[in-house]
Amino acid sequence: MVENVHFLPNDPPETIGRKLLRCNLSDLAAMGARPEGWLLTLARPQNLEDEWFEGFCKGLKEDQKLFSLSLLGGDTTSTKGPLVLSLTIIGSVLPGQAITRTGAQAGDGLWVTGTIGDGALGLRALQGHLSDPSGYLSARYRLPQPRVGAPLYGLASAAMDISDGLLQDAEHLARQNDLGVEIFSAEVPLSAAARHCGPQWLETCLTGGDDYELLFSVPPEHEADLEHTGSLGTVLGQVPVTRIGRFHSDYKGVRVLQAGGTPLTFQKKGWSHI
Amino acid sequence: MVENVHFLPNDPPETIGRKLLRCNLSDLAAMGARPEGWLLTLARPQNLEDEWFEGFCKGLKEDQKLFSLSLLGGDTTSTKGPLVLSLTIIGSVLPGQAITRTGAQAGDGLWVTGTIGDGALGLRALQGHLSDPSGYLSARYRLPQPRVGAPLYGLASAAMDISDGLLQDAEHLARQNDLGVEIFSAEVPLSAAARHCGPQWLETCLTGGDDYELLFSVPPEHEADLEHTGSLGTVLGQVPVTRIGRFHSDYKGVRVLQAGGTPLTFQKKGWSHI
Repeated sequence: MVENVHFLPNDPPETIGRKLLRCNLSDLAAMGARPEGWLLTLARPQNLEDEWFEGFCKGLKEDQKLFSLSLLGGDTTSTKGPLVLSLTIIGSVLPGQAITRTGAQAGDGLWVTGTIGDGALGLRALQGHLSDPSGYLSARYRLPQPRVGAPLYGLASAAMDISDGLLQDAEHLARQNDLGVEIFSAEVPLSAAARHCGPQWLETCLTGGDDYELLFSVPPEHEADLEHTGSLGTVLGQVPVTRIGRFHSDYKGVRVLQAGGTPLTFQKKGWSHI
Repeated sequence: MVENVHFLPNDPPETIGRKLLRCNLSDLAAMGARPEGWLLTLARPQNLEDEWFEGFCKGLKEDQKLFSLSLLGGDTTSTKGPLVLSLTIIGSVLPGQAITRTGAQAGDGLWVTGTIGDGALGLRALQGHLSDPSGYLSARYRLPQPRVGAPLYGLASAAMDISDGLLQDAEHLARQNDLGVEIFSAEVPLSAAARHCGPQWLETCLTGGDDYELLFSVPPEHEADLEHTGSLGTVLGQVPVTRIGRFHSDYKGVRVLQAGGTPLTFQKKGWSHI
């Protein structure tokens, strides 16, 4: 993460480090892996204040405890440029139990954890483009909730986490499996705060990114159980899961359909067609 | 490693990545660990040319083969500041066989691999402060020879690699063991190229850094064997080893003695006394 690219100098230091750590945890969660430890390297500008650094470390310390991690190493160096933070996370998974991005079959359902779009709306709220009276959306942007511990093995045929936007990442997942995927926009779970923003923000929710939710394919034989329980256990508690679409073999890429079956078109290029 | 701090924009890209990797390998070597894989993260300025990047990758690829490593992951991001390179290396060592910086006893010998000061002299040569007709010194600065595979377990009581300069690092080793260490400057192994620079460069050799040789303590019962063979096997071949001093319990820190026993004094502050 680079200052002025991934965060701003006036962002709260407590959440910058936590977000970096949590984005990494989300990657592990998507593979069904258990985090073991992390390494942190900083290129630190000389004018960075100790107070900033203390807040940064305090936030990381909290998350280290929350997720039962050990700091294994790293390095600190000086730079005349912006602050650069590099974090490596190491996790483990039993042999043969890692979930990858390939393995989805035509007919599998496409499922997500949690709600989609909160992070993207939170960023817009912090930029002053929409109101966020409860602060829920900006909190979701600043502090992702990685779904560490979600028991994907034996359930999901393929998985990834959503960081670049639901549609972009669903497109990646479909293409890596040489499949198409149909997404029903009315099924995409939105938080109360996101719904409150109004339908004009739906496109932002679907394409905006910063979700750090899990996106995974589930073979039909496992879907009834999942539908019944409606949630998965994670180290931070139960998280709801929702089927939002299905994989097909007769086309490649992503189709988004509204309730009733008409294709959804987007202002932003690239999402109006397959 | 940060551009303009640890390397210059006109340094050959082939060696920049290799040096970063090799500095990390040297850390593993000092623990008696075997390298398994590495992760690389780059914060890349937009004006960085593809040609530079190709050379950078080519160098790393060569070293990956040379040291039998796998690239396990990493990330690339953009920055408006200088190029920042962050490399994490992962190694393994059998339980209980890792060599740490503590464990040295009074009476242990202080030993080094290879020759000392070449890297520091190489940097001065590249800066135009001395001549390096063969290019040996600048090559040693740009391309450290990490002593991966040196069989320290069962031989060394404590070890580290020399990156900040022999005297500084010997000071660290002594203090972490709550001991003093006496170094005989005439015993410190210098390359032919370093000796050719003349005695006025001895201080640079002893304090300059960028050696990436191993510095280790050896209990007296293992010293006769080591003296007899005079070298250790590494993945890049045999490397000579030399005893340069001995640990003591009656003072803390580093003493440097010339042949004859008179203390060596230094122009640079901090090395004229304990």
